[in-house]
Amino acid sequence: MAKEKKLVEEITSMEEDFAQWYTDVVKKAELIAYSSIRGCMIYRPLGYAIWENIQKELDRRFKETGVENVYMPMFIPEGLLNKEKDHVEGFAPEVAWVTEGGLNKLTERMCVRPTSETLFCDLYKDIVESHRDLPKLYNQWCSVVRWEKTTRPFLRSMEFLWQEGHTAHATAEEAEERTIQMLNLYAAFCEEILAIPMIKGKKTDKEKFAGAESTYTIEALMHDGKALQSGTSHNFGNGFAQAFGIQYTSKENKLEYVHQTSWGMSTRIIGAIIMVHGDNSGLVLPPRIAPTQVVIVPIRQNSEGVLDKANEIKEKLGAFSVKVDDTDKSPGWKFAEHEMKGVPIRIEIGPKDIENGTFVAVRRDNREKTTIRFEDADAEIAKLLETMQSDMLERAKAHRDSSTYTAKNYDEFKDIIANKPGFVKAMWCGEEACELKIKEDTTATSRCMPFEQEEISDTCVCCGKKAKTMVYWGKAY
Amino acid sequence: MAKEKKLVEEITSMEEDFAQWYTDVVKKAELIAYSSIRGCMIYRPLGYAIWENIQKELDRRFKETGVENVYMPMFIPEGLLNKEKDHVEGFAPEVAWVTEGGLNKLTERMCVRPTSETLFCDLYKDIVESHRDLPKLYNQWCSVVRWEKTTRPFLRSMEFLWQEGHTAHATAEEAEERTIQMLNLYAAFCEEILAIPMIKGKKTDKEKFAGAESTYTIEALMHDGKALQSGTSHNFGNGFAQAFGIQYTSKENKLEYVHQTSWGMSTRIIGAIIMVHGDNSGLVLPPRIAPTQVVIVPIRQNSEGVLDKANEIKEKLGAFSVKVDDTDKSPGWKFAEHEMKGVPIRIEIGPKDIENGTFVAVRRDNREKTTIRFEDADAEIAKLLETMQSDMLERAKAHRDSSTYTAKNYDEFKDIIANKPGFVKAMWCGEEACELKIKEDTTATSRCMPFEQEEISDTCVCCGKKAKTMVYWGKAY
Repeated sequence: MAKEKKLVEEITSMEEDFAQWYTDVVKKAELIAYSSIRGCMIYRPLGYAIWENIQKELDRRFKETGVENVYMPMFIPEGLLNKEKDHVEGFAPEVAWVTEGGLNKLTERMCVRPTSETLFCDLYKDIVESHRDLPKLYNQWCSVVRWEKTTRPFLRSMEFLWQEGHTAHATAEEAEERTIQMLNLYAAFCEEILAIPMIKGKKTDKEKFAGAESTYTIEALMHDGKALQSGTSHNFGNGFAQAFGIQYTSKENKLEYVHQTSWGMSTRIIGAIIMVHGDNSGLVLPPRIAPTQVVIVPIRQNSEGVLDKANEIKEKLGAFSVKVDDTDKSPGWKFAEHEMKGVPIRIEIGPKDIENGTFVAVRRDNREKTTIRFEDADAEIAKLLETMQSDMLERAKAHRDSSTYTAKNYDEFKDIIANKPGFVKAMWCGEEACELKIKEDTTATSRCMPFEQEEISDTCVCCGKKAKTMVYWGKAY
Repeated sequence: MAKEKKLVEEITSMEEDFAQWYTDVVKKAELIAYSSIRGCMIYRPLGYAIWENIQKELDRRFKETGVENVYMPMFIPEGLLNKEKDHVEGFAPEVAWVTEGGLNKLTERMCVRPTSETLFCDLYKDIVESHRDLPKLYNQWCSVVRWEKTTRPFLRSMEFLWQEGHTAHATAEEAEERTIQMLNLYAAFCEEILAIPMIKGKKTDKEKFAGAESTYTIEALMHDGKALQSGTSHNFGNGFAQAFGIQYTSKENKLEYVHQTSWGMSTRIIGAIIMVHGDNSGLVLPPRIAPTQVVIVPIRQNSEGVLDKANEIKEKLGAFSVKVDDTDKSPGWKFAEHEMKGVPIRIEIGPKDIENGTFVAVRRDNREKTTIRFEDADAEIAKLLETMQSDMLERAKAHRDSSTYTAKNYDEFKDIIANKPGFVKAMWCGEEACELKIKEDTTATSRCMPFEQEEISDTCVCCGKKAKTMVYWGKAY
């Protein structure tokens, strides 16, 4: 009983302390457990099932574009990591080093992969010989390790799960095309499946990936007005190919360097789902990603026929992922628990409903109740799930749009950052000095130079010199 | 062209040098590539696609029995690994140690998981409180690291992919039941999907898992007469629970230790697929696990209508995984390549076939050709695939049975081991001394005490004392 009480206890309200609200939800919805390894988390069944659904859908979309899955070793010898100068500078300070194997000291230490560009290059160097071997469109699902100082569940942890795609192409144009194609794929996935709208754009040179020629990003706005980088796609040009000697014989029988890309999405995106859709009762899962889409809670379940009816409804809803909660907890307790866990629709069915030939369906996002006749179960639940999915996207869009501001000069800019959580659209001259000053003055960073540009003014919001491009700025996770 | 020639080159014949044949197939079928990390291999698209199919089917079967997936950290602090005495003795000599993180030396070194019993125990200790929390039926798909001295692709590598199930139960009976249930699940999967017959049995104390009360195993016989341990299921009793303090309050309100199991199957099983079914033209994949079940090779593909017809047949075979090979290689080259890669059925379609309204289907396992009318494509290919699948299992069974011998005394035993590759069934007194002597004299080891016991004689094949049990002996990978 003591355990039950602990669980229905109110979580911290998001208005009071958003960070604490987040931690409470993550733990009480049983998404993760903390482990005794600093900065590493345990994915519990609900947390992992969400990741499995993300994997299934992303993997299907990748494969439709010709991508093949592979698996590379988890270790990178120091010498291999050192081959591309910018890359090693970016990652060496934050890796875990294996220095002993079995009972012996290693002659060369190896890091646990923080990302696998170097390993893919090492493979491509061996298996790419002719233009007929191109493109190579490989991806792997794995875990990576980055030695972070401060960690937060899903958002920043020492080990995290992700996919990393690595492609090699004959031409620069093809590589750029693939980079953009994967960015668009990520954005479409987030909108259609996770109900999270994305700003698509290019990172500034300061924010790009170590070793990349250009990095593209999708940026989402969390409920508290902070931005979350949700997926990135990098064009490496032929820099890595030169460092690793990845050459092919062209149709014209000339030796050329390949052009490469990489792109990744991680369990971080689960943090976005929580912070975009969650509320003060816990998690709210978009129907298309929810491991359990409908939970049936029998009322007075020991009355004759109630459990049978609950199971009959489950049968009728065979197209969805449905659970009957027939544990011996009280209905009120069950309501709270499944709300905490974000189940999109709750069905309540008791003796009275059975008499009427109906049941009640309650939407998790707005708690709207609908009375549904047994014979309409399948069609009505399908409709509710679809409506809920699109309402969630619309709500997230409306919140993002109403939290996006425009600043024409630095005073406006600083005032917005200080007082209005959200994105700020403002012009930039292209100089890193202005990015650094803005970060220093406001803690906001350049999120991206969006594909959809607007002409807000013709001068840089920071230095007042001629503007080159519009940038989305914001505080970020 | 040089590259093409290299690929159609004959592989070493299995009769001449089985080990070299295995290595040739693994490389030329492009299952793996060697990496520059000692003992680690790269899973190329075909190798990884076979693993994905294994995962999909096993995962479905696990979930049907109530198993939920989770993900645990990949690192184990030394102190945690040390908690169970037998376990740490078994694994500490063969782990990789992380001693530096970021730019700092760690105060406690961590190993990369060789297996995750200790991590699951650490979690169960925190989340199991009452009998209502039991059973816990968790599984994870991940990679593990064991610092092996000699390595071979799939069979023994420093890093390998696997699943590890870890369950906690209220009673010893339930734990034993789950241990056997999972062993049976593995055996059924191997027979039904991989067409590999298994001997099910219990390991002797000498061969059991470090820290287990009992270990059950499935053992398969490879084409060369050597055994391969293909999956194991362990009952831990409450030993780990005592070491980690995993207790629950029973219905009678008493504090009790949980009883635990673990069970695993790894990418090693891909080695079994190769060595049970392969032939001198390369890999032979059972239809139910083959990533590509049917490859269509157009003959004179530049003739009008040929490619269209090939694609039309592909459409008709929508229920299967089908590829049209329209590359500019010659048909002969394509035949050899897809044979090497083990594609179960090849369809040949050219102008002449089109005239006749038929195509030719060739089975990979026995090269039998069938002429099929277009309108019968779906039904006939379905039948061919099913027949091929069951023929492969029958053939593997026949080979296993005809390579299984019985020894009543030590001379017979030694003679068989020396001259007839295969399993030897012989009685055993139960003493480790005899196991050690047999290994010393013959290099054969006890594979298992099979569930299906026979009374071959009443004395131990080695020492002649009273026999306790029949054992399968053999040389093993």
